[in-house]
Parts: sequence; structure tokens; C-alpha cells
Amino acid sequence: RRGEMGAARATQLINNEVFRAFATYAAIVLLKMMLMSLITAYFRLTRKAFVNPEDIASFGKGESAKKYLRTDPDVERARRVHLNDLENVIPFVGIGLLYALSGPELSSALLHFRIFTGARILHTLAYLIPLPQPGRGLSWAVGYAVTFSMAYNVLRAVWHL
Amino acid sequence: RRGEMGAARATQLINNEVFRAFATYAAIVLLKMMLMSLITAYFRLTRKAFVNPEDIASFGKGESAKKYLRTDPDVERARRVHLNDLENVIPFVGIGLLYALSGPELSSALLHFRIFTGARILHTLAYLIPLPQPGRGLSWAVGYAVTFSMAYNVLRAVWHL
Amino acid sequence: RRGEMGAARATQLINNEVFRAFATYAAIVLLKMMLMSLITAYFRLTRKAFVNPEDIASFGKGESAKKYLRTDPDVERARRVHLNDLENVIPFVGIGLLYALSGPELSSALLHFRIFTGARILHTLAYLIPLPQPGRGLSWAVGYAVTFSMAYNVLRAVWHL
Repeated sequence: RRGEMGAARATQLINNEVFRAFATYAAIVLLKMMLMSLITAYFRLTRKAFVNPEDIASFGKGESAKKYLRTDPDVERARRVHLNDLENVIPFVGIGLLYALSGPELSSALLHFRIFTGARILHTLAYLIPLPQPGRGLSWAVGYAVTFSMAYNVLRAVWHL
Repeated sequence: RRGEMGAARATQLINNEVFRAFATYAAIVLLKMMLMSLITAYFRLTRKAFVNPEDIASFGKGESAKKYLRTDPDVERARRVHLNDLENVIPFVGIGLLYALSGPELSSALLHFRIFTGARILHTLAYLIPLPQPGRGLSWAVGYAVTFSMAYNVLRAVWHL
Repeated sequence: RRGEMGAARATQLINNEVFRAFATYAAIVLLKMMLMSLITAYFRLTRKAFVNPEDIASFGKGESAKKYLRTDPDVERARRVHLNDLENVIPFVGIGLLYALSGPELSSALLHFRIFTGARILHTLAYLIPLPQPGRGLSWAVGYAVTFSMAYNVLRAVWHL
């Protein structure tokens, strides 16, 4: 039957070691990115700094509640980490998927995935603590270079304009 | 011939029911996310609130036009919905693809995809109307939990550090 | 052996011409999006406009350094291009992958990928120079329409609610 054959085929990709490694690291960095939502929410609640009027309704009405509609340095910092993740983690996932499907050596692929994941975890720590520069800048650059290297390998393997 | 064989193989994935379901819901939530561009543009035009000087050139020059370079609460709200979609819909698409390829039961997969899609449509409505909290918060949390559950299933199926 | 068979299978997708074309154009537009990080950094450094206190530590301490914690029109413009890319390039990559796997004609697929890539390069130029409207608006709309057309084709090919 067609459905079963399709199901059998689709699951074969997860027998591929490079794909399994990619899926593992992609899930880890996407979860790390999603964690920023919780960190931002934590700072919003503890610093009492909100942006939507409906979010402060439980604090009462009028001027006494309106003071909680404000920006807070910790909230804004967490939001910048989140945006930086959107700008860097998502290209890694997109280009990394194409790279994993382009048939690289397992050892090369693992090197790319591990360095990127380590660099982005360091980047988040460097941004949130914050560490003095160039800590954050270097960890950003390492992740950027890894994604660029994967893109180069993809383009060399698939080039078809 | 190589090209034809490749073409035949690539189309086999769409015979897989889980993949078809994923592609359907992923396209729906990505289109919903893209809809936010149109809603933001609608508010910018009707509220006359722009950010780029070249966008208000048709309103004339000088101070009379410059007043349209301003922020507007409805525009900012639509932009926040869009950013929240980037932060939540894109991880769903990335993790959901890995999940769909990891060979889940069709019924489990459909449950994940349907709850996420419903939750994100409710989230958009709750944010834009806006509904009193915790409407928006709960719909956000449901979508977040679904993505987290898929990530857990992916990591259990593919774990390869 | 299982690993080798999986490896052989995974690399077959890159024998598919539509997938090769998608991977080529997806890598190009993702690299173009990533380029915005460098352009923003260039404007931050040349305009001396930063957002994190730790980034201006090398400029000295106290009020003389604090003046570099400011917004700059060129920096903000580059950031808006980057955000617009996140909102448009990422849906193209997600929907485009599903579209490439849904078995379209190579000629139709190439038409979609080429128009989108051209439109987004024009959009970046129109935004950064900036060109008078409707240059930027039209290039944005063309990319949006291409992604919408691919989503329509995906939903027609895979529909499974």
C-alpha cells in the first residue's frame, strides 16, 4: 500500500548518521532559541516591565498601573539575544539541512554542528551576563563562519542556477 | 537517466502521509505569519504612521509630511504579533520537519500539528483584538508546549551527539 | 550496513535537479540575509552608534563614552532590511523546500526561485540606497507573490488536514 511504502521511505532518512547528527544539534539550538522567550518573560515579570495594556490589567487601573508599561534594560537585553538567535540560528538550520543532505563526511559535519552549537551557547552567556567584549563578538563570528562554511559546501555540491 | 531517477525519488516523500500533513500545516502557519505583513501595511496606511522618509514622499515635503514619520499603537501591535510568529512559527516548522522525518505515528503527528495551528490562530486573534489575558498567554503556551513535545520526540529518535 | 545505506540514500536527493536548484537559491538568499549583520555592524562602527554598554568600553568610561549609546538612521535602516529579510526570506526557504519536494516541473521551479532571488536583491538595494517608492514596495510584493504561489502549489499537491 502506498501510505505504508511512503512511511517506510520517510523513516529511512533517520538511519543516515549525518542527518541524525544534524537533527540533534538543530533541535538543541532551536530549543536554546526558544528558551529566550522564557527568559524575556521572566525579566518582564520580575522587573514589572510590560508593553501591552492588557498585560497589566491585574495590577489595577489608571496611572498606578500605567507605570508598568515601560522598557527595562534586562528585558531589552534578553530581546536582543532572541533577535540575534533568529538572525543566526535560523540560517544555521536552513543551510545545515541542505548541507546534511548534500552528502558530507560525518566527521566534517559533526565538526560544523558542534562548533556552531558551542559558539551560540557561549554567545548567549556572553550577552546575558554580560561578559566584556570581544567575548560576545568572537562567539558570534565563530557561529557565522561555520554557517558560511556550510553554505560554501552546499553551493559547491549542488550548484544549479 | 540520473535526473529522472532523482525526480522520481524526490516526489516519493509526498506519498508519505505524515509528511503531507506536516507540509499542509506548515504552509498554513507560514501563510498566517506572512499575513502579518499585510496587516501591518494596512495599519500603516490607514493610521498614516511610517518609518522611512521615502515612504511619505507622496504626502508632500517639509514639516507637513514629517508628521507621518511616527509610531502608532496599532502598527506596533501588529509588528509584535509578527515578531512573536517569527519566534514561534519558525521553530515549529524547523522542529516539525525533523519530527515528520523521524517516523512518528500519523495520529500523534496530526495531534501536534492541529493543536499548534489552532493555538497560533487563537494567539493572533487574542493579540490583535485584543482579548483580556490570559487568553494570549495560554494560546502562546500551548503552541510552545507542542513544539517542545515534538523536539523531545525528535531527540529521542535521532540522538547523535 | 545500515549507516552506509542511509548515507547513500540521503545523498540521492542532491541528484534531483529541482532540489539542487532550490538548495542553490536558498543558500544565496540566506547568505544575502546574513550579509545584513555585517552591514549593520559596519554602520555601528563607522557611525559610532551602539546599544550595549560593554560594546563601548574601549571608548573610555563615563559621559564621554555614553554618547555612543545611541540610535543612528543608517543603523536602524540596515536593521529594518534585516528584519524584513527574516519576515520574507525564511518563509521562502520553508515553503520553497516543501515546494521542491512536492515534485514541480523544473522550469516552473526555476522561475519561482529566480524571480524571488532577483526581487529580494532589488529590495535590499532599494531599501539601502534608498530608491524612491514604489521601488522597494514592488520588489517586496514580487517576492511575497512568488512565495504565495509556491504555498498554493504545495497545498494543492499535499493537502492532508
